[in-house]
Amino acid sequence: MKIRAGIIGGSGYTGLELAKILGAHPQAEISFITSRTYEGRNISQVFSSFGLHKNESPAFIAEPSKSDYEDTDILFLCLPPSESIEHMKKIKNQHGLKIIDIGSDFRIKNPDEYRMWYGKEHILPDILQEFTYGLPEVYMELIKNSRLVSNPGCYPTSVLLALAPLLKAGIEFKSINIDSKSGVSGAGRKLDKKYLFGSLDNNFYAYSASGHRHIGEIEQEIKNMSGTDYKICFTPHLLPVTRGIFSSIYCQTDLNKSGGLAGKIDHIFEEFYGDSIFVGYTGPSVPELKDVIGTNNCLIGCIFDERTGVIKVFSVIDNLIKGASGQAVQNMNIMFGINEGEGLPGKGLY
Amino acid sequence: MKIRAGIIGGSGYTGLELAKILGAHPQAEISFITSRTYEGRNISQVFSSFGLHKNESPAFIAEPSKSDYEDTDILFLCLPPSESIEHMKKIKNQHGLKIIDIGSDFRIKNPDEYRMWYGKEHILPDILQEFTYGLPEVYMELIKNSRLVSNPGCYPTSVLLALAPLLKAGIEFKSINIDSKSGVSGAGRKLDKKYLFGSLDNNFYAYSASGHRHIGEIEQEIKNMSGTDYKICFTPHLLPVTRGIFSSIYCQTDLNKSGGLAGKIDHIFEEFYGDSIFVGYTGPSVPELKDVIGTNNCLIGCIFDERTGVIKVFSVIDNLIKGASGQAVQNMNIMFGINEGEGLPGKGLY
Amino acid sequence: MKIRAGIIGGSGYTGLELAKILGAHPQAEISFITSRTYEGRNISQVFSSFGLHKNESPAFIAEPSKSDYEDTDILFLCLPPSESIEHMKKIKNQHGLKIIDIGSDFRIKNPDEYRMWYGKEHILPDILQEFTYGLPEVYMELIKNSRLVSNPGCYPTSVLLALAPLLKAGIEFKSINIDSKSGVSGAGRKLDKKYLFGSLDNNFYAYSASGHRHIGEIEQEIKNMSGTDYKICFTPHLLPVTRGIFSSIYCQTDLNKSGGLAGKIDHIFEEFYGDSIFVGYTGPSVPELKDVIGTNNCLIGCIFDERTGVIKVFSVIDNLIKGASGQAVQNMNIMFGINEGEGLPGKGLY
Amino acid sequence: MKIRAGIIGGSGYTGLELAKILGAHPQAEISFITSRTYEGRNISQVFSSFGLHKNESPAFIAEPSKSDYEDTDILFLCLPPSESIEHMKKIKNQHGLKIIDIGSDFRIKNPDEYRMWYGKEHILPDILQEFTYGLPEVYMELIKNSRLVSNPGCYPTSVLLALAPLLKAGIEFKSINIDSKSGVSGAGRKLDKKYLFGSLDNNFYAYSASGHRHIGEIEQEIKNMSGTDYKICFTPHLLPVTRGIFSSIYCQTDLNKSGGLAGKIDHIFEEFYGDSIFVGYTGPSVPELKDVIGTNNCLIGCIFDERTGVIKVFSVIDNLIKGASGQAVQNMNIMFGINEGEGLPGKGLY
Repeated sequence: MKIRAGIIGGSGYTGLELAKILGAHPQAEISFITSRTYEGRNISQVFSSFGLHKNESPAFIAEPSKSDYEDTDILFLCLPPSESIEHMKKIKNQHGLKIIDIGSDFRIKNPDEYRMWYGKEHILPDILQEFTYGLPEVYMELIKNSRLVSNPGCYPTSVLLALAPLLKAGIEFKSINIDSKSGVSGAGRKLDKKYLFGSLDNNFYAYSASGHRHIGEIEQEIKNMSGTDYKICFTPHLLPVTRGIFSSIYCQTDLNKSGGLAGKIDHIFEEFYGDSIFVGYTGPSVPELKDVIGTNNCLIGCIFDERTGVIKVFSVIDNLIKGASGQAVQNMNIMFGINEGEGLPGKGLY
Repeated sequence: MKIRAGIIGGSGYTGLELAKILGAHPQAEISFITSRTYEGRNISQVFSSFGLHKNESPAFIAEPSKSDYEDTDILFLCLPPSESIEHMKKIKNQHGLKIIDIGSDFRIKNPDEYRMWYGKEHILPDILQEFTYGLPEVYMELIKNSRLVSNPGCYPTSVLLALAPLLKAGIEFKSINIDSKSGVSGAGRKLDKKYLFGSLDNNFYAYSASGHRHIGEIEQEIKNMSGTDYKICFTPHLLPVTRGIFSSIYCQTDLNKSGGLAGKIDHIFEEFYGDSIFVGYTGPSVPELKDVIGTNNCLIGCIFDERTGVIKVFSVIDNLIKGASGQAVQNMNIMFGINEGEGLPGKGLY
Repeated sequence: MKIRAGIIGGSGYTGLELAKILGAHPQAEISFITSRTYEGRNISQVFSSFGLHKNESPAFIAEPSKSDYEDTDILFLCLPPSESIEHMKKIKNQHGLKIIDIGSDFRIKNPDEYRMWYGKEHILPDILQEFTYGLPEVYMELIKNSRLVSNPGCYPTSVLLALAPLLKAGIEFKSINIDSKSGVSGAGRKLDKKYLFGSLDNNFYAYSASGHRHIGEIEQEIKNMSGTDYKICFTPHLLPVTRGIFSSIYCQTDLNKSGGLAGKIDHIFEEFYGDSIFVGYTGPSVPELKDVIGTNNCLIGCIFDERTGVIKVFSVIDNLIKGASGQAVQNMNIMFGINEGEGLPGKGLY
Repeated sequence: MKIRAGIIGGSGYTGLELAKILGAHPQAEISFITSRTYEGRNISQVFSSFGLHKNESPAFIAEPSKSDYEDTDILFLCLPPSESIEHMKKIKNQHGLKIIDIGSDFRIKNPDEYRMWYGKEHILPDILQEFTYGLPEVYMELIKNSRLVSNPGCYPTSVLLALAPLLKAGIEFKSINIDSKSGVSGAGRKLDKKYLFGSLDNNFYAYSASGHRHIGEIEQEIKNMSGTDYKICFTPHLLPVTRGIFSSIYCQTDLNKSGGLAGKIDHIFEEFYGDSIFVGYTGPSVPELKDVIGTNNCLIGCIFDERTGVIKVFSVIDNLIKGASGQAVQNMNIMFGINEGEGLPGKGLY
């Protein structure tokens, strides 16, 4: 029998991408999908890229009924900040339901940190600890046994997959500086003059340069992996492309102690990701954004700059797939004990 | 048992796309793939977008051996003009082998027309008639029973699928004017200053405006479908995108006889494509290039301009999939009696 | 003494481009510029591309005062449909003031045609005839002696410059079919999901395919130049670029009478544009969009297709310069008797 | 009388851009322009964006004659690495001629450093010291009195203008990490598969990540301005745009000593660039690439990250103008004692 998945918030980029993946998943099916804006219309009528067969695609509903929930094995929340919390309050009695929150409400475990980065009190602090941080390549076993999973943010996914092997290998840094570049779909489908084609085409710039919410999430997980309280410098930039994140991560080592490091790096990454389905290591050859677009893959390259003692790590993901809905389905697969890669694209458009 | 497919010429856009589709096809597998340039290397080593698992992807060989052919059920030729002919001469004794030529050598049946559009004598005129023109939505039954299939060109696919319902319904035109726009992958991976990023970005222009080879192929098939010898005006343009063809087709009707036509058009298209897996009709709403990128779909819209008597037909395809390798696999599926849509993508990137 | 120019509606693409050109014009200066949205702010504060020197650029005002008008020699209206009419009503007593309307309100001279294409009654039909259609390469002498000029639309500019030499030479057509492609700045800075970067990047489609307002304007001027009432088939498309219009114009001649035409075409265009500063003829070599971006130039290429009797004319302009503000300044130069090309860019970015 | 300028190497992006600027310069004219590839053809015939008037634009010559040099006041060298040196050897007897080398041969003053970054011996080490490093905002007075000027590289221009105010103010850093992003015209018009439209569109990646030649030049000038031997970490990336460089510069301060720094930064930049024509400071508001494309401007923004002690400096330039030919003309203006901004564009395309 197929896994029956309900989608709350199906009209944004994330919800649509999730619906596409689930719609083609050999072992899952969409039990319902909600959208107030598009209530009553089929997905294909709203998004032509969903496919030709307008009558076969599910129709959006405004609000799931009690029986909708009963016919559902797992719920995906694709909601803006603080709305997942509201939804969790509302459905608190659906005890058995597995839930993956693709939003950002349950990623940060410390309510003080949450308040600092999201500017408000968390109103369900008690269940924060029940959510597992859904980064499969790091927390596979935990995810297997979790009912509640918070799906990592797009930037944190690209950064943490790149840092995990080094941190877990015990390498210490004097500072970590992250310069990330994202396609515009990271901002969702917001209607703002700055996201118009005429504003972004041929353009490029940094944004949220004085502090981005993903910093708290990244620092929390760096601490989990290394035991060290790093304060990271993180600067996101906007690329004139629709999809993809390229992160350039500069880890400053102590030049006096970094002898021999160059020789170990390749081994550290190869060991860590040797068995991974979705994460590949390209060595000193820098991966390209295009290599992963349309896939759930993450590619990582690494170079040690002997002159300055900086380890440069470069990672690329498709922000809507490995950085959001693809990783959510990867988590679902793990939670239901089926093949981690089931229904997930591994080859991209050229 | 899986269909074993050999690919001759695997290093261009078309060959790579074919390899990706066949590599993920549940009922087919690649028996060999050739490329002189990349001999000995795995596909993944050359094209990162092919996937992570470098050792699992097939390796390019320079030339298939006799046993390679024996282990092959179907051969795909992805070769530049006149090289498919050369290859056919060489393998003429492989009698049982099914063959799909994705190149242009066996599309035009009349050697005089071939000479006119390709500027040279066809050296295998005798087998031209043995090749079925592989446009599945028009020639399904013929393809089922064919051993040799010539896969339509990208522009002809976009034009003929748009015209077929009108021509088959017996509507007559005073003239047919086709203004097509293609992404740059239509030109393959040619190394020419005009295909540099700095030359094409923010640019647009018409090319081959005094006569393009696909005219002969389009006119041949228009005649097959309508019985009429139309001379078409065809002008291709280059879009600053990598993939996709948008064709605007202007069919001039006789204003004195076109009464009632407006009411019939929707019915004609809906009837013709009602059962099609890959071709959809959008009515007077114009389809967008993005709707089909990454899929084997073709979307068609149609408007009758009562002021001028012009039927405007708009069609969109992904030139590398429905316009080349995807359609080739669709033909393969039909030739082997399996589901026409097996292994073919129906949903695109947003 | 410099020409003092007032700008009504300075916050759109057209107004900004006009301000940039006038700001660098050696014989003109901006007397005032209006914008309700940006009232009180300097142009440079709102549009960084206007330049570094924030305090030197003019500040937006909400409404010009009586003395503002007295200090002004020429008024440019950069307003949405029907707002120029409202403004003309309001300032009717500014008798001596020269006016160039960059909007669309005074281009169509026949109030019935205006009603048909703009869907409402023209409330100042009496002054329609007082406006000269400001296409300098065709109406130079009229413009010289005009106080009121309506600046041509972007599509009509690209089409009429391409057709003028043929029409004025008396060549007759059975039909005229125009397939135009425009960058997105043609739609102004409208906030609509369809103009988001994520919607347009890698995309292309036709719009207003059942009838675009510029048809009326084009047909009026074709009649003025040829004496013939052509009904044109016109289909605009949206290119994934910010600036530029490429028009492909297909003129169907009578094949029985078109003998010798091929030999005459080059001569017709070269004669017509030999002395033009801004319009160039490229012969059978098709011009590229990029050749004219950032300039007030129009390039035209022409090919006669002997198989079908179709004259293919291709033209390119920068829609915001020759298609709007640049042409307006060209008209201003002519109206004030100075060099037609003064202050106008003739060389583009590569 | 106009300044007569000769251009050696006129067929690349840099030479063409220089020719366009000089061609429109009110106080300069092109005395000759060389190109072996295009010998005998007018610039307009080769590059349509140069303008309409094919006969008026200068024609390329293969090699300047003695009288060409005599009719020339200043020579611009636009040549690949090590070819400027060759040319200097050849013309050593042209004693009075002013020379600006836009190439990279005379920027690094220390022959050992030159060997390290360029991989070969410098064959004219004796004249290295005679070349002034042509960064006008820092070395104005030196340039005024120089006969020989080496024009800074594109990346160094974007980096050094951003760092100069901080370095000259005596602020000390523990490390300097530079993450730069450049449009593809930085690579010139090289014919390589990696620069094809199909390779770069929708793509992004780092290159030369293990060491780029501009590091030597940047470190040399940082030392000149600060007296300190910084080893910088520099990583260039390729943006899917034609023009522009965006540099993100991360200066790590000592957190224990950085108290009060936040309050001083704005003042430092405003003081340094208050009188500059071409460099503007945007404060904590990050400048955008688009703000400067088509201009000789550089915009700089700066944010102090109190959590980590990192000063983030962001700068944008048009790599072909302020990063190459525009800055060269700015240097020429200064060398001839005319207005620094003469003939240089200060406002961009929107």
